Amino acid sequence: MTATVRVGIIGGSGYVGGELLRILLRHPEVEVTNVTSRKYAGQYIYRQHANLRGFTDLQFAEQNLEETINKSDIIFTAVPHGTAVKIMPRLVESGVKIIDMSADFRLKNPKEYPIWYEYEHPHPELLDKFVYGAPELHREQLKSATRTSCPGCMALTSILALAPLVKNNLIEKERIVIDSKIGSSGGGAEASQATHHAERYGVIRPYKPVGHRHTAEVEQELGLLAGLPVKVALSTHAVNLVRGILCTIHVFSTRPVTIPELWKTYRGMYSREPFIRLVRDKQGIYRFPDPKVVIGSNFCDIGFELDERANRIVVMSATDNMVKGAAGNGVQCMNIMMGFNEKTGLDVAPLHPV
Amino acid sequence: MTATVRVGIIGGSGYVGGELLRILLRHPEVEVTNVTSRKYAGQYIYRQHANLRGFTDLQFAEQNLEETINKSDIIFTAVPHGTAVKIMPRLVESGVKIIDMSADFRLKNPKEYPIWYEYEHPHPELLDKFVYGAPELHREQLKSATRTSCPGCMALTSILALAPLVKNNLIEKERIVIDSKIGSSGGGAEASQATHHAERYGVIRPYKPVGHRHTAEVEQELGLLAGLPVKVALSTHAVNLVRGILCTIHVFSTRPVTIPELWKTYRGMYSREPFIRLVRDKQGIYRFPDPKVVIGSNFCDIGFELDERANRIVVMSATDNMVKGAAGNGVQCMNIMMGFNEKTGLDVAPLHPV
Amino acid sequence: MTATVRVGIIGGSGYVGGELLRILLRHPEVEVTNVTSRKYAGQYIYRQHANLRGFTDLQFAEQNLEETINKSDIIFTAVPHGTAVKIMPRLVESGVKIIDMSADFRLKNPKEYPIWYEYEHPHPELLDKFVYGAPELHREQLKSATRTSCPGCMALTSILALAPLVKNNLIEKERIVIDSKIGSSGGGAEASQATHHAERYGVIRPYKPVGHRHTAEVEQELGLLAGLPVKVALSTHAVNLVRGILCTIHVFSTRPVTIPELWKTYRGMYSREPFIRLVRDKQGIYRFPDPKVVIGSNFCDIGFELDERANRIVVMSATDNMVKGAAGNGVQCMNIMMGFNEKTGLDVAPLHPV
Amino acid sequence: MTATVRVGIIGGSGYVGGELLRILLRHPEVEVTNVTSRKYAGQYIYRQHANLRGFTDLQFAEQNLEETINKSDIIFTAVPHGTAVKIMPRLVESGVKIIDMSADFRLKNPKEYPIWYEYEHPHPELLDKFVYGAPELHREQLKSATRTSCPGCMALTSILALAPLVKNNLIEKERIVIDSKIGSSGGGAEASQATHHAERYGVIRPYKPVGHRHTAEVEQELGLLAGLPVKVALSTHAVNLVRGILCTIHVFSTRPVTIPELWKTYRGMYSREPFIRLVRDKQGIYRFPDPKVVIGSNFCDIGFELDERANRIVVMSATDNMVKGAAGNGVQCMNIMMGFNEKTGLDVAPLHPV
Repeated sequence: MTATVRVGIIGGSGYVGGELLRILLRHPEVEVTNVTSRKYAGQYIYRQHANLRGFTDLQFAEQNLEETINKSDIIFTAVPHGTAVKIMPRLVESGVKIIDMSADFRLKNPKEYPIWYEYEHPHPELLDKFVYGAPELHREQLKSATRTSCPGCMALTSILALAPLVKNNLIEKERIVIDSKIGSSGGGAEASQATHHAERYGVIRPYKPVGHRHTAEVEQELGLLAGLPVKVALSTHAVNLVRGILCTIHVFSTRPVTIPELWKTYRGMYSREPFIRLVRDKQGIYRFPDPKVVIGSNFCDIGFELDERANRIVVMSATDNMVKGAAGNGVQCMNIMMGFNEKTGLDVAPLHPV
Repeated sequence: MTATVRVGIIGGSGYVGGELLRILLRHPEVEVTNVTSRKYAGQYIYRQHANLRGFTDLQFAEQNLEETINKSDIIFTAVPHGTAVKIMPRLVESGVKIIDMSADFRLKNPKEYPIWYEYEHPHPELLDKFVYGAPELHREQLKSATRTSCPGCMALTSILALAPLVKNNLIEKERIVIDSKIGSSGGGAEASQATHHAERYGVIRPYKPVGHRHTAEVEQELGLLAGLPVKVALSTHAVNLVRGILCTIHVFSTRPVTIPELWKTYRGMYSREPFIRLVRDKQGIYRFPDPKVVIGSNFCDIGFELDERANRIVVMSATDNMVKGAAGNGVQCMNIMMGFNEKTGLDVAPLHPV
Repeated sequence: MTATVRVGIIGGSGYVGGELLRILLRHPEVEVTNVTSRKYAGQYIYRQHANLRGFTDLQFAEQNLEETINKSDIIFTAVPHGTAVKIMPRLVESGVKIIDMSADFRLKNPKEYPIWYEYEHPHPELLDKFVYGAPELHREQLKSATRTSCPGCMALTSILALAPLVKNNLIEKERIVIDSKIGSSGGGAEASQATHHAERYGVIRPYKPVGHRHTAEVEQELGLLAGLPVKVALSTHAVNLVRGILCTIHVFSTRPVTIPELWKTYRGMYSREPFIRLVRDKQGIYRFPDPKVVIGSNFCDIGFELDERANRIVVMSATDNMVKGAAGNGVQCMNIMMGFNEKTGLDVAPLHPV
Repeated sequence: MTATVRVGIIGGSGYVGGELLRILLRHPEVEVTNVTSRKYAGQYIYRQHANLRGFTDLQFAEQNLEETINKSDIIFTAVPHGTAVKIMPRLVESGVKIIDMSADFRLKNPKEYPIWYEYEHPHPELLDKFVYGAPELHREQLKSATRTSCPGCMALTSILALAPLVKNNLIEKERIVIDSKIGSSGGGAEASQATHHAERYGVIRPYKPVGHRHTAEVEQELGLLAGLPVKVALSTHAVNLVRGILCTIHVFSTRPVTIPELWKTYRGMYSREPFIRLVRDKQGIYRFPDPKVVIGSNFCDIGFELDERANRIVVMSATDNMVKGAAGNGVQCMNIMMGFNEKTGLDVAPLHPV
């Protein structure tokens, strides 16, 4: 038996914190030692995360960086952007391993922060100390990484769908349209008028038709793959479910392509990936990716279709935004960083029907 | 008081038939005289349309064209495509007014039918006897029309959103991406494995990423407005609601445009339209169109946003697919054809919240 | 043509206010003259009620009792319980007609208020100046009423289901179990953690297993019918929809009864009621009441079944909580009070499917 | 490492079969060797259970009892009632261990089958060869059992809620009202008009107000606990979700009881149960059981409330009908029968939010 790794979670009362706990409390290599919450310090964790009743007697701890550092071999920071950046200098200095779930260290170019996040990054010197936590793109770096910045949910779902096409130079780089649909858990645990059930149920609400922040990550990662800048046009919609993302990506091919060529392109990049499934069936109900059949799992399902009339390739990708879009992907990164089997704690089938 | 108009419905047991009945049974200028159903002939209508219990004692009649012709001043045909075309020669010959809810007379060019509907049109000589029933585009023609072909739900929702941009030559005509999301009523009343609640609930299912039939109508009508062919790339998704369509339309401007110019373009075309609302607010929950706030009404809500980075205009349009997307629009056409006030029977506010 | 009646609404920004507006803005005998909101005074009404965009240019007015009195022939008060009671003395004094949508004047016995609403009623002298607004029970009184107190949504749905059985002395009066299920609009427009979509979606949440306030109204009205006290055991559940109530009522018969006898009992009381439909079919999907097929309408659907093994009668009743459960029933009361046709403004079929 | 147990599933294409596979394909003590389906023999399993893509390359086998017997140490029969009974004589004769998921061996008294299931039981001699698979009631028997009959989903959810009260003789045995609400997966994988999404979405449909078959099991098991016959009045409702059951149980106490006494009663019976959680909180959103927070897990959450006015105890119990209500409970029984740790393969937290 291996010695367990001690894990701390800073900011454990939100949905990402809860999902990390759901996975980590049954991860065989891990002991959760410290879970902080400013707001709920002293309360039993299962009061906020009712699903975890019976799984842990832990209480939320006051936020105390030194205590978390002392108790942890690796720390997940699950606090909002703008907050993570404030505590990071001390965490980095301590040498503890870090997986940041916020957006504060996703972008390599500090100039992007004022544009997309409306703040001047206070610690640009730390940006290149973080690996962008997409195992499918940066696995080798993650193996030796001390710090990882976990991608945004819609960003990762989009990047994984587009990477093979961009890497193989099959598409126009100025006309990448991502039409994204997401469930309500993606907005976090904070209630508002817009998330009131009577107002949020049954919508197809275009909440950010232009200018969504995840655009910047997608452009960064695809730009790295392309070796030159790409332009991403992302529009996001809230739909009537809790978990799940579908990205429908409309791109235009630079030369005639065929379905077999697309299969080869995607298989070439992903055939050995543990958490990517290629989905393009000729019959059945689930012929293309649909978040319905990834719920509760760490999969990103990817499929594609050709529209020869319009020279268009349609790529579809589906994730559970709480798992591959957040906590599950974070644990996958942790497994790589710690040298565990990459699937540990994540090797579960999606629920169906649900 | 005007004499009431006698209305017949051929194929009254499906969802379009039911919605026509819901509206027409309380239309002050109309008497519903004959509603046919091969399958349910002899049954009370409210057995199929449980909402109509207490609204009518009519029973479904056997299909009998002569009887329907004799009893009607105007006939709605609400049968599947491929079926309408079979009964139409006799209906046309009879001289009765007709509003066809099927796809059989939407396309003017008979060559399009084998491409999109997989059948050779048996009566191409009838195609130009039908006006395409988009009041916002063809009102003058409708005033004197004897026969109208009612648009497809996603087609009309898309056409209305794009018409001002195309008419004013503001966008590229080869890169019109329509990402459409629709509720389950759009698929009709017939149950299947794919519509089984446990399989259909909670999906974001890309059911027709390319090649959807409504593409042809959109290209036809936009082509007429543009004066030259346009290329439409339509992808359709099933989402977790019953009524409602949102079309998110991604187009690229041919020259720099501004928000005020877009306002002017849309107002120029639609400011006097009774069933179009322009929606682009700076605050509130419903800043852009959302089917949530058109349910039960004949409105098409349209909004837009500019993505200057990508030279993109995002247009969003929302309808209740059963009303403006089908029966309501059909009744609007009837009102115009019969010289009634165009809003008669349709002047109701959407339900909210619902 | 009759002269229109001027209607004021005090507290027009909530869901009941919005639903009153939806109905009254198209009521042919009515002009809405004054709609107040402390919170949104000066804002266009359609900013709060997005469905009403295009239906009215009215803005919310400051709350000013004298102005509302001066501008109105009849006033709806749609403010929370505890607030209505504060403004009522002046309204009563003014002589204006009143329909109170709150709970403040539903109970005749002031001693019930501390028990169920945790306050001492400050104006017990006004309680008997209000008719309990159940047209099916108190139509004659309503015809000459100046003031009406509109029932609670679950109370009215329960009372209508039970009245024939109680009136005909068919059931035990100490064992009346009402198991009620309701959509999220019943909780009002105010957002909270409990109504956050990610937490409220998909629940079957027993939010008030005992002690629900509507119990008191049901006991009062059934007690009047029985001529002696009855004991009601109400449990309420939040389910995953926005509009709709189903009350499943489990009662025990005092002597053997038959289905034909139950039909006779219910028909005897309700056969001429414009907004009650009796539903007990042997086939079809909607054999018993289901809120699904009353949405948007003023109907209360009622059905029943016999469980001879347990001596039990199961009564089921379904309403749209915003219509027959609130605004629609209020308008029905208004129609009676003003001498209009009782169905005016309410004679619409439910939406289906929705 | 223990040798793995070989498991066969007869009838693997339905929802129960799929859920068994989801759990068993990752059960560390088990190898799934043979999964039959008459309808889909030869197809890959993941074509029917799209969630299992990537989890197994197994194909459905033709139904062949001898082959299944040869390949299995234990067999789950997941075929409809009436079908299981036909294959059981051979399975029993073979001596293989059996867990029957159908209703064919749940009732001990063969006379109950014509009453509740409309058939004469063809093998009454086999009925007492099956243990009723409720681990919380029959664990000792299960330890040495060769054959288990797994309870109905609503039956088990009800029995677990009522057992402590009945066992301790706290309630009237003639007035046990169970008001049950269930998601659409409970109806199985077969599509019908009643399960068509547009008709099934948004309902609160009382589909079996009296006479539900699970009544018989509940009466049997409670009768055993009481030592005399009990009378159960069960009404079942379909609500708008896929997974989940809530039973709201209204019973009348035979003498005054208190909340502490109820706590003691429930803790006395369940404090060491691995899959029962008692839920009765004074604050928070989930103060009482709600299927929302058991989804994906094997828990039965149970809570209670006292209605002193009506002498009523309200007990609420929530399960995931696919897990504790079916496959998960079956695996729990298997674990006991095989001498495994009872939690193996089932020790996962519910998903939240979902």
